[in-house]
Amino acid sequence: MSPTIPPLAGKLGALQSSVIRDLLKLTARAEVISLAGGLPDAELMPRERIAAAAAAALAGPGCLQYTESPGWAPLRDVLAARESVRLGRTVRAEEVFVTHGSQQALSLLAEVLLDPGALVVVEDPAYIGALQVFRAAGARIVALPMDAEGMRVDLLAELLAAGERPAVVHTVSNFHNPGGVTMSPVRRRALAELADAHGFWVIEDDPYGELWFDRPSPDPVATYSRNVIRLSSSSKIIAPTLRVGWMVAPPSVFRGVELLKQGADLCGSALTQQIAADLLADETWLAAHIDTVRDAYGTRAKALVHALRERFGDRLVSTDAAGGMFVWADFADGTDTKALLPRALDAGVAYVPGSAFAATTGHESALRLCFTTSDPATLAAAVDRLARAVEAQSAQS
Amino acid sequence: MSPTIPPLAGKLGALQSSVIRDLLKLTARAEVISLAGGLPDAELMPRERIAAAAAAALAGPGCLQYTESPGWAPLRDVLAARESVRLGRTVRAEEVFVTHGSQQALSLLAEVLLDPGALVVVEDPAYIGALQVFRAAGARIVALPMDAEGMRVDLLAELLAAGERPAVVHTVSNFHNPGGVTMSPVRRRALAELADAHGFWVIEDDPYGELWFDRPSPDPVATYSRNVIRLSSSSKIIAPTLRVGWMVAPPSVFRGVELLKQGADLCGSALTQQIAADLLADETWLAAHIDTVRDAYGTRAKALVHALRERFGDRLVSTDAAGGMFVWADFADGTDTKALLPRALDAGVAYVPGSAFAATTGHESALRLCFTTSDPATLAAAVDRLARAVEAQSAQS
Repeated sequence: MSPTIPPLAGKLGALQSSVIRDLLKLTARAEVISLAGGLPDAELMPRERIAAAAAAALAGPGCLQYTESPGWAPLRDVLAARESVRLGRTVRAEEVFVTHGSQQALSLLAEVLLDPGALVVVEDPAYIGALQVFRAAGARIVALPMDAEGMRVDLLAELLAAGERPAVVHTVSNFHNPGGVTMSPVRRRALAELADAHGFWVIEDDPYGELWFDRPSPDPVATYSRNVIRLSSSSKIIAPTLRVGWMVAPPSVFRGVELLKQGADLCGSALTQQIAADLLADETWLAAHIDTVRDAYGTRAKALVHALRERFGDRLVSTDAAGGMFVWADFADGTDTKALLPRALDAGVAYVPGSAFAATTGHESALRLCFTTSDPATLAAAVDRLARAVEAQSAQS
Repeated sequence: MSPTIPPLAGKLGALQSSVIRDLLKLTARAEVISLAGGLPDAELMPRERIAAAAAAALAGPGCLQYTESPGWAPLRDVLAARESVRLGRTVRAEEVFVTHGSQQALSLLAEVLLDPGALVVVEDPAYIGALQVFRAAGARIVALPMDAEGMRVDLLAELLAAGERPAVVHTVSNFHNPGGVTMSPVRRRALAELADAHGFWVIEDDPYGELWFDRPSPDPVATYSRNVIRLSSSSKIIAPTLRVGWMVAPPSVFRGVELLKQGADLCGSALTQQIAADLLADETWLAAHIDTVRDAYGTRAKALVHALRERFGDRLVSTDAAGGMFVWADFADGTDTKALLPRALDAGVAYVPGSAFAATTGHESALRLCFTTSDPATLAAAVDRLARAVEAQSAQS
C-alpha cells in the first residue's frame, strides 16, 4: 500500500513567494546590469573590522552559549545610547529588543499586534516584506498613496473620520523602499497625533535613516508619540550577515514580543550580536564608515538620477537622490514596465516593475531602480540600455 | 489630552512565559548548584576551532551579504552528506532547510502544517518549546505517555482507531527532553507505519542523537517513512551561538517553510552558517570533538545516576544515563517536587519540577536534572543537598 501523503495548512494557499526574489533568479545573467536587486554593496562592508570584532568576541568567555531572548545585554546598552540620541530622550535598554533583522521585528509584531481581520494601513507602493507579513497574519490591508512628503496622512485622517479603526499603520519613514521619498516633519507630527488620539500603533520601519546624502533625516515619528514602535537595523550600515535588527517598544509590546521570540527561535546569535555591539559602540570609526557609505551611494544615486533626466527628460518622473538605496521612477506616458521588462533584459538591464509593490493594483508605469552596487559609468550604461528598450518598444507599438 | 494606548492581539492572553526561564531567574544564585538549566557546557565548546573558521570565512568573499532563505548552499551540501549517512539513503541538498536553531524549524512547521484546531500529539512529559509553539498555533494537543521504550505508540494506534486524525505527531526520539528515554526501533517502525497508513506528519526532533554514551542511537524514525520531517541542530554538538539547526523535509513542506522563512526573517547569517559548514565538514576533527563531549557528559550522567540511586534507593526512580543532557526522576512516594523546590533552594540545589513539562497536569512527583555543566563531585554534592531537602520536608510533614 502506498503511503498517504498528509496535507499542509490551508492558509499556505494564500501566500506567495516574493515576486522580486523570483525575478532576481531570472535576471542573474552576467551580461545584464541589474538595478533590480535590493542589496547593500558588499565591497563597502567593513570586512576587516568585523573580523577583528569576531576574533575579540571569540577570545573572551561567554559568546558561544544561548543568549537572552531580547538580545545580548551589552548590545542593548549600545543601542539604547544610540537611540537616545536619535529620539532626543533617554531610551532605556529595557525598551530595546534585538531581532534577527528588521524583518523578524515585523513578523513578531504582526503576531503581537494583530487579530485576524484587523485593519493595517501601509504606504502605496508598499514595502514587500511588510505586505507579506501582514497578509500572512490575516490582516485587512489599506494602502495610502505617497507624494513628495511621504504618506498622505490627510487620507488617513479621512479614513479615521469615516470610522475605520486601524490596529497598525506601517511606514518606511526615510528614503522609502520602493518609493524613495521621506516623510516630512509636519506629516510625522500629524501621524503621531492621530495615533495618540485614536489609539493605534505606528510601526516606523527605518533601516535607511542614516544613509542620507545631503542633510540628516528628520526627527523620527517616534519622537512625537509613545504609540510608535521604531525599527532599525545594522544590515544597511554594517552588514546583513550579522542579522542584527532592533526595535524600541513600550513595555506591553516588548513583553509580547519576548514571549513570541522564545517560541520563534529562542534567541539570536551571541557571536554576531557581540560583533554588532563592538562596531556600533566604536563611534568615531562608525561615523567615518557611514560617511564612506553615504559618499559612495550619494555619488551613485546622483549619477543615476542625472542619467535618467538627461535621457528621458519629462517622460520619466523620478524621485530625488536624497538617501537610501532606491530611485522610484514613473513613465509619464503610461509605458507598461512589466511589458517592457523582457525587452529591457534583452537590452541588458534589469529593474523591478512598479506593480510588484502594489498592495492591490497600480504602479504599472513605474519602476524601482537600486543604485547601491553599480558605479556611475555602469549606471549611465544601464540607463542607455533602458532607453534603447523603450525605443524598441515604441517602435513596435 | 493623554494619548490612547492601543491594544495587543487577543491571542497573547493565552501565551505564557516559559516556566523554566522564569525559574532560572530565581535560581541564579552563586551558592546554588543548578541542575535546572538546559544548557550544553560552554567549556566543551570548540572556541578556537570556531575562531579559526570565523577568520577563514571573513578572509574570503561572500559571507557578509544576505544569504538564501533555505541556507548557505555549501552548508546544505555538508548537511545532506551527513544526513545521508544517518538515514541510509541519498539525501539531496534540496531536501535540507537550514533554520535559526531547531526551535525555528518547529515554529515554521507549526505554521506550515497546522490549521487552527488541528490535533497535535506530543509526548508526556513534553518538550516545552514544542508545546509553546503548538499552543500558539491554536492546536488541540493530546499528550501520550512514555515508558522505557519511548512514546506509547500503541495508545496512538488506539486514538487513530477511535477516529482521531492528528495533523502532526511530535517526538524527541533520542534521549528525550525532559523524559530521558529513547524510542525503541520497534516503536519507530510502528510510528512510521501509522503515519503512512493514516497520512499524518511526524516531526522527529533530534538534537541529542549524537550524544550517546555507550551505544549509537537507533536508526531515525525518518528512515522508515517520507512522512517524517527530521530536525537536528549544531547547538548541542558545536555551540548554540551559531544558531544553526536544520530539517530534512519533503518538497511540499520545504516550499511552505521557504515561503514563511522569507516573512519570518528573510534568511540566516551567512557568517555563522559558513562557520558551521567548516566544522561539520571536518569529519575527523568533528568525530573526535563529539567523542570528547560524549565522554564528559557520560561520566557526569553516570555520576549523577549513581548518586541518586545510592542516596534514594527505590524511593526515586530515575532514567538510565544513556545519552543527551537530562535525567528524569520520579519519587515513588509521591513527594511533591514543586512544594519541595523552595526547600531544595534553601539546601543549595535547583531542578525543574516535573509539572512544568505536563501538557495539562501530572508529573507532580517528578523532576528534571541536567548533568551537563557540573563535574561528578558537584553532582554528588547536589544529590546530597536534594536528600537533605527531602529529609527536612519529611520531618515537617
